[in-house]
Amino acid sequence: MKLSVFCLLVALVCQRAFADWVRQPFWYDDARRDKVAKGTVWPQPRSIQTTQQSLSLNPDSFSFSTSDDASSNANCKDVLDPAIERYRDLLFWIPAGERVSVSGDRVLGGLRVTISGGTCSEYPTLDSDESYTLEVPASGDATLRAQTAWGALRGLETFSQLVYEVDGKHKLNVTTISDEPRFRHRGVMLDTARHFLNVPYIKQNLDAIAYNKMNVFHWHIVDDQSFPFQSATYPDLSGKGAYTQDNVYTRQDVLDVIEYARMRGIRVIPEFDSPGHMQSWGQGYPELLTSCSPTNVQADIYHLGPANVARNSTYDFMQNLFTEIRDIFADDYLHLGGDEVHFQCWMSNAEIQDFMRQQGFPNTTQGFAQLEGYYIKRLLDIVEGLSVAPKRSRGIVWQEIFDNNILSGDFTVDLDTIIHVWQWNNSNFQGIPYWDELPLVTGAGYQAILSSCWYLNFISYGRDWPEYYACDPHNFTGTPQQKQLVIGGEAPLWAEWVDATNHVARMWPRASAVAERLWSPQSVTDSAAASPRMEEQRCRMVRRGIRAQPQGPSYCKYEWNLAGQAGNYVPTASGARGITGYAQQLLLSLFSCLVLTFGLS
Amino acid sequence: MKLSVFCLLVALVCQRAFADWVRQPFWYDDARRDKVAKGTVWPQPRSIQTTQQSLSLNPDSFSFSTSDDASSNANCKDVLDPAIERYRDLLFWIPAGERVSVSGDRVLGGLRVTISGGTCSEYPTLDSDESYTLEVPASGDATLRAQTAWGALRGLETFSQLVYEVDGKHKLNVTTISDEPRFRHRGVMLDTARHFLNVPYIKQNLDAIAYNKMNVFHWHIVDDQSFPFQSATYPDLSGKGAYTQDNVYTRQDVLDVIEYARMRGIRVIPEFDSPGHMQSWGQGYPELLTSCSPTNVQADIYHLGPANVARNSTYDFMQNLFTEIRDIFADDYLHLGGDEVHFQCWMSNAEIQDFMRQQGFPNTTQGFAQLEGYYIKRLLDIVEGLSVAPKRSRGIVWQEIFDNNILSGDFTVDLDTIIHVWQWNNSNFQGIPYWDELPLVTGAGYQAILSSCWYLNFISYGRDWPEYYACDPHNFTGTPQQKQLVIGGEAPLWAEWVDATNHVARMWPRASAVAERLWSPQSVTDSAAASPRMEEQRCRMVRRGIRAQPQGPSYCKYEWNLAGQAGNYVPTASGARGITGYAQQLLLSLFSCLVLTFGLS
Repeated sequence: MKLSVFCLLVALVCQRAFADWVRQPFWYDDARRDKVAKGTVWPQPRSIQTTQQSLSLNPDSFSFSTSDDASSNANCKDVLDPAIERYRDLLFWIPAGERVSVSGDRVLGGLRVTISGGTCSEYPTLDSDESYTLEVPASGDATLRAQTAWGALRGLETFSQLVYEVDGKHKLNVTTISDEPRFRHRGVMLDTARHFLNVPYIKQNLDAIAYNKMNVFHWHIVDDQSFPFQSATYPDLSGKGAYTQDNVYTRQDVLDVIEYARMRGIRVIPEFDSPGHMQSWGQGYPELLTSCSPTNVQADIYHLGPANVARNSTYDFMQNLFTEIRDIFADDYLHLGGDEVHFQCWMSNAEIQDFMRQQGFPNTTQGFAQLEGYYIKRLLDIVEGLSVAPKRSRGIVWQEIFDNNILSGDFTVDLDTIIHVWQWNNSNFQGIPYWDELPLVTGAGYQAILSSCWYLNFISYGRDWPEYYACDPHNFTGTPQQKQLVIGGEAPLWAEWVDATNHVARMWPRASAVAERLWSPQSVTDSAAASPRMEEQRCRMVRRGIRAQPQGPSYCKYEWNLAGQAGNYVPTASGARGITGYAQQLLLSLFSCLVLTFGLS
Repeated sequence: MKLSVFCLLVALVCQRAFADWVRQPFWYDDARRDKVAKGTVWPQPRSIQTTQQSLSLNPDSFSFSTSDDASSNANCKDVLDPAIERYRDLLFWIPAGERVSVSGDRVLGGLRVTISGGTCSEYPTLDSDESYTLEVPASGDATLRAQTAWGALRGLETFSQLVYEVDGKHKLNVTTISDEPRFRHRGVMLDTARHFLNVPYIKQNLDAIAYNKMNVFHWHIVDDQSFPFQSATYPDLSGKGAYTQDNVYTRQDVLDVIEYARMRGIRVIPEFDSPGHMQSWGQGYPELLTSCSPTNVQADIYHLGPANVARNSTYDFMQNLFTEIRDIFADDYLHLGGDEVHFQCWMSNAEIQDFMRQQGFPNTTQGFAQLEGYYIKRLLDIVEGLSVAPKRSRGIVWQEIFDNNILSGDFTVDLDTIIHVWQWNNSNFQGIPYWDELPLVTGAGYQAILSSCWYLNFISYGRDWPEYYACDPHNFTGTPQQKQLVIGGEAPLWAEWVDATNHVARMWPRASAVAERLWSPQSVTDSAAASPRMEEQRCRMVRRGIRAQPQGPSYCKYEWNLAGQAGNYVPTASGARGITGYAQQLLLSLFSCLVLTFGLS
């Protein structure tokens, strides 16, 4: 043994022993002690007064009732009645055989739901009132009051979260809550182009979105890699642009998703990204895209670049396609994309060059920014022209569209357009930090959505949700009016590295941290204090069938099991969700068969 | 707009546009082109000659046969017959309704399996012969020849991987393979203490281990956080140390896992880590552990530290416990742990100090290293004393035990002991790089297992399997004899951040990269060339019901669906695996019921 090696080892071993000693509390602290809260609400309500006085629930007799107000309006009833059926199921999860009688306990008999806003809209909108109050009194029924069906949904979720399990009983504490969201736009983004996600998976995410009181599903439905949206107008978009013909969303699939979301108070905003990110469009319709010449920067890996914005036929195509899209999707807003357009291909194309000369755009980065602005302006005009009162039709665009405005000095984009801020400046991406971008965007009078700090696709070792939790959309210098223009945020999960095998676990409960940031008061910022509630929320989601990943050494009372193994895989009442639906079908067949048997004998 | 802000934006936008342009091929290149190989083998065989001449398989008539040799030995038959049934199912995955007739094609009629080694061992061992040859000729049956049942299992896996799908037909090409592993010990480590994993999940991993021709399941069964192993001798170990009494492995569970593994040629090596990592042991048996006094370094978060190595009662306890363990686990080797022992607690305890004085160990780091060496030596003596011929009983220990030997100058650990090298030196951990440790370990004459570069728990954005693929256990300076002493490696997945919600997807196919490194010739190092085979292996695993995560934008012909939704969720034939087992039960009940119906009518 050389002395140098020996010394090296001594040093390393000592250093390691010390490092371990310092680190070990981290492991142990996270381990055995009971760190899961009981009966807490996620996201934290605006105002909650809770007591130690507990009431029991009797699964056999607990009743939901709705006031006349709530049931008189067809739109309210349409959403509220199925919701009550769902929450009736979610409320009582202790398996029948393990329930303990509550006779002799102080029992909460029921929940009365009142919607006092008069009318309910058919679909949730950016302006929907989601406020509610919930009173669980020491005696008498609990009451939930909301202005709209959407507020009632949020209140039902809260009510269901107050319930906890003690020794085979469902319990909750006497509590008073007055609640409303801090931001109006609270979303997650699913990318179904890098990997296809089938409808049952999307529905599972919609369940989780509702469990976290988020209200927007931003559907990044197509991209370079594939075009799964099946268009009747242009069938070759998916016919040639989808990965396979199994990997498509039919019109009926899309309507199914929209209806499932509506029932949960969730807006579905599709994104058809252009003029970049359109390689898959070009599989069926190459004339839509710009032919690139090889450049010094890059050989001809790309034969086709961004949309050919010089041709009128491109705008006709978009007019027809967006007419179909507008007809299917119910929300006021469509996301038009506009990110990451590569000017080099345009630069290499003679037709584009001619067009720019005609328009008087210089052959500079500024000129190409003007060109992209020109395209998006025409696209926004198309989309806005599709408004059919009382529905509006408006666009959301990624921040480059605004940045191009600055670059070209040409603020042509309608102020009704929402700017989606996504760039950041860290080890993964060198861009404009959101606290520099938001002052500019809101200073120019645009509404903004923030995503920069919530890119769930970026992963790292260990617990990362406190980072998402720490990011506040008002973390920039601006006037109160500017702050008001930030209408919320979204957690995107770009899907290069996720598909149905790992998607849900990667998104939840990390997106839950974003959900609380966007719902709860600005003062709720202590992630250590939030941790036991977060653990309960994660275990609650697992219990409800959402494959939410752990956040450190732990266990849940109801662990995730291979489905079917577990009595604990509780499906939501409406909407088949894979195996459970399948198992239910089989059980139903079995039951029918037994009936038949006895009928015949 | 301030000019400075404007200039900043111009610079950033330009910089971004260029960066995107350079980066985009990365995204696009990984996308639409068909990157999944067809009918390739993972891990790459030692020698393979394949042709373009394809044969079709007829699912209705394809036959497996075994030679007299293979079936004359009960042990061979015991493993081979169920394996043939499993592979019969795995071979024909195209749903019955989508199969196309192969009449008129050149058809491969069957596979003949010969085990020519004479006798088969009941369990696989470190020295088992896993070699095989496989001949798929242009006419006549295919032949698979092996020395043992374990080699036949590897050959069956290879045969099943040669099959690919074309237009509704199962096909394979005329091929000759001669194959054997480069390393004898090829494992994955599952940690069931930080999070409990139920038996069906462990079995699913065993399936995947077999699909990747690995042969060791290192079961890190207990740790600080929980003690799920149910001991008859010391029931309070799990009775008080498990997370809950649902989160335990009964003796029957363990035997079930061992048998499932045996059927797949996989050794099960349990790890009962001591003298550190024993907090959960102390829940039921606090007298086993050292009482720590608060130190300057740390207050009293730890009341109890490592095993109290000064008491004879500790050794009696270990003798009794390991007698029970030795009785249950069939493998020659038990993993005794020995990592991350914190000397500060021992330092603070008067009883330990007295004992060290008696033994003549100085009150220095070197003295504590001697103390730990003393303990492990006695534990190894206990374990080795449990040998019952012809079975041996030997220990594997983490590298600290060896490092302590160096530190104390006292090489007391038996040369039969295997040293498990795990430390490394990177952003996650500052330790001894394996290329510095392996020369020392093997130079001292010990056999070594490598894990340092294969810690699957450390995650990062993007595709990381090429890093695992690049790590070679012979990447150190040493004599041929030293290289020979490296018997293989293991990919550990420490479970702080994984449980049943995300475990399988995090392990596979990343562990597949390690599998190829450990099986294939040293010259197989090009990850770009391996990529289409890796994609096929991942899609193959998904098709077989393993939730293996994607490695970039892609799709598989058989995507993962919510189970039960999909006709493509093909269970392995033996061993119920969650829902499928459940669905099968229901189908069986339904079938019984129908029989009953018709019987009665």
